[in-house]
Amino acid sequence: MINIKVNIDKVLDFVRLEEIHAFQTEINKHHKALLNKTGKGNDFLGWMDLPSEIDNKLISSIESDAQKISEIADVYVVIGIGGSYLGARAVIEALSHNFINLLSNKKKPLILYAGQNISEDYLSELLDILDKKDYAMTVISKSGTTTEPAIAFRILKNHMENKYGKKEARKRIIAVTDISKGALKKLADDEGYKTYIVPDDVGGRYSVLTPVGLLPIAVAGFDINSLINGAKTMQQFNASTSSINDNPIALYAATRNAIYKKGKIIEIMVNYQPNLFYVTEWWKQLYGESEGKENKGIFPAGVNFTTDLHSLGQYIQDGLRLIFETVLTIENSHRELLIPADKENLDGLNYIAGKRINKVNKMAELGTMIAHVDGGVPNIKITVPNINENILGQLIYFYEMACAISGYILNVNPFDQPGVEAYKKNMFALLGKPGFEKETESIKKNNFLSH
Amino acid sequence: MINIKVNIDKVLDFVRLEEIHAFQTEINKHHKALLNKTGKGNDFLGWMDLPSEIDNKLISSIESDAQKISEIADVYVVIGIGGSYLGARAVIEALSHNFINLLSNKKKPLILYAGQNISEDYLSELLDILDKKDYAMTVISKSGTTTEPAIAFRILKNHMENKYGKKEARKRIIAVTDISKGALKKLADDEGYKTYIVPDDVGGRYSVLTPVGLLPIAVAGFDINSLINGAKTMQQFNASTSSINDNPIALYAATRNAIYKKGKIIEIMVNYQPNLFYVTEWWKQLYGESEGKENKGIFPAGVNFTTDLHSLGQYIQDGLRLIFETVLTIENSHRELLIPADKENLDGLNYIAGKRINKVNKMAELGTMIAHVDGGVPNIKITVPNINENILGQLIYFYEMACAISGYILNVNPFDQPGVEAYKKNMFALLGKPGFEKETESIKKNNFLSH
Repeated sequence: MINIKVNIDKVLDFVRLEEIHAFQTEINKHHKALLNKTGKGNDFLGWMDLPSEIDNKLISSIESDAQKISEIADVYVVIGIGGSYLGARAVIEALSHNFINLLSNKKKPLILYAGQNISEDYLSELLDILDKKDYAMTVISKSGTTTEPAIAFRILKNHMENKYGKKEARKRIIAVTDISKGALKKLADDEGYKTYIVPDDVGGRYSVLTPVGLLPIAVAGFDINSLINGAKTMQQFNASTSSINDNPIALYAATRNAIYKKGKIIEIMVNYQPNLFYVTEWWKQLYGESEGKENKGIFPAGVNFTTDLHSLGQYIQDGLRLIFETVLTIENSHRELLIPADKENLDGLNYIAGKRINKVNKMAELGTMIAHVDGGVPNIKITVPNINENILGQLIYFYEMACAISGYILNVNPFDQPGVEAYKKNMFALLGKPGFEKETESIKKNNFLSH
Repeated sequence: MINIKVNIDKVLDFVRLEEIHAFQTEINKHHKALLNKTGKGNDFLGWMDLPSEIDNKLISSIESDAQKISEIADVYVVIGIGGSYLGARAVIEALSHNFINLLSNKKKPLILYAGQNISEDYLSELLDILDKKDYAMTVISKSGTTTEPAIAFRILKNHMENKYGKKEARKRIIAVTDISKGALKKLADDEGYKTYIVPDDVGGRYSVLTPVGLLPIAVAGFDINSLINGAKTMQQFNASTSSINDNPIALYAATRNAIYKKGKIIEIMVNYQPNLFYVTEWWKQLYGESEGKENKGIFPAGVNFTTDLHSLGQYIQDGLRLIFETVLTIENSHRELLIPADKENLDGLNYIAGKRINKVNKMAELGTMIAHVDGGVPNIKITVPNINENILGQLIYFYEMACAISGYILNVNPFDQPGVEAYKKNMFALLGKPGFEKETESIKKNNFLSH
């Protein structure tokens, strides 16, 4: 049984149901092309079968490593950028205490992130913390030469070897990389690091259910078996039907594309729980990188409500009418907290005294959807009963599959990212990287740079 | 001397210089209307004179309270939403250690935030922390009845009174509210809380240089005198000229509006330092709430590079060509960290060994600007030499004034936010708030709700 529902009632003022169902034939075709691996980018469809095909031995190995790490480390540093950390971070933060950094008596290592930026302050300040904490780390990179994680790993490897000695450091480092080639694979072999594989047929943004995501998630103390089982439930369900009426994946893909066709070019992913921030960040990469090409694609944005109703709310209500929203709604919270009564009632809240805060949050959500629809903003609603590993697994597969179908509807390859190379090439040229001599000369000339 | 430069070289492939300078006459008019307080929303122009008119006694009083708080509290909770916390949080995080939550031996209270959402989990988990830490708090609300902060304050007031007793709790609470009216003012008077004033003529998103922002910033240990002096420098400079050639405020306002006229409807604020995240969030509220009305306005988005080059980078490079970027570039980092040499050089980084990480970050920035311009994305560049209180003060005034001028160019009132009320009204109706009986009946009927 899947636990994800998609409701499009608050879209139908803008798009007729027939216009959504008009995508059925096309979706049947794309759904089949994906299952049969016959469409664009079909050498990167490994993610589709990850949940059903994952080896139990791999899971046991990751869990056993996670256990060992938790015995020797208070902090676990995940070095990676883009798809090499966003999936893990999305799951970990969604399942973690909102103030985990401040909790005493943590049973599991605190996960920190590096190699996702080139900030000298950030990395220096991370070292301030690592000077004083026992730590271990994983470096996640298919090539081992991506600039951001490579710089961070060089520095942290030095730091760790100075702190623990070379021999002990080797036990505290796990590499997640290519099966046979690349700089990180060679280094891991030379040093004798424990290594996990990034499959060849899985791109970064679809890699959360490989060791890329599973290792950090397990180290943080969460149940990766349940995560995978959730994804498997969705995988099997999806394989059974491509009907817009029956499959919420098909319904989400059809609806967002029907709205896009009407000229709503910005999709805002909305949540009402602050620890879902990184789920939205993961979604932004998944959709932005898959669809944003050939001068096409829905621009993916994110908000945390009700927080951002007091910042972007005015724009969404009354600005340019180019927006639609997709609300990820979590029916139940983990914790229970009631609004207390107050005999003075100066703040006027006694009318909701005794109610759970989550009830007020739900009414804010419904009230906002109604207000935004009134303002000209279609709202898609994705509902799950609560947040746990199983449901996050379902959501991951749901979003991935809907994204693949959407990319095919847009007639792009949803599994490549050619535009990401452009800044790298310029950066290498500007830094004078060997092999880029011609680009260096040209970029300096064209931009009037002397040094 | 102001320290902010605006460079538009990477805009001129898309907009001719004459098209930018065509705004000069209009900007002269709006600049004058703002200084003379004769334009739209002129009862909310108090922010313009805050830097020059602030009373030294007020600053001393805030600094003295901040000192007292730091002696009795390890954590300081700021209760507020929208403009009541974003300005303070922007300044505090920009000036703080990236891992301040994990630093031992903090000299100043750690600032935590509440009342900016309605998440039952968030508030419950905040109480977990407050159970174990000595804390004090401020509640920031003009009315005292805004739902989010009112709920948080009810709960935290109870918690604090249980923990410390009513008498001691009163010493640990400061109210920032209206001078004479409203629920919070009455409560503060009844309880005898220390109180600071939100001026009547300053809207939330323009309030960071009032006690709304100054109190939390001072408690966090930062120099509010220097912040105000920076803003004053920019205020005085701005008063001296409205020339697009001489005043970077006029240049930024003219350029972004010239680009918008060409159909680029999304402005992405870019930074390369992760602790500027909340500066961007503050900017998003300032611009989104000021401009997004009457079905007009640039949609404000934010990215942290190079992080998000590996998520939204593909879209920005190759997606719909409706985007321009404004890059806030910080020339110097606080800390120094060099890329070490490595004799194996498997990762191929030896060509930048011995270089500062910030140098690589700068080349990533320049390489990205060139790549995005090549891809059809105009880039405005705002440069400051480094980040400190004075420069943040300059930036605040810079962004506020450019926003006010932009709003006038768009012919909207940049100081109201009528659209923010819509969700509140629905929420009150759905929750059955007294006084909303008619709305309750109507919303239930129209949305087929039974309870």
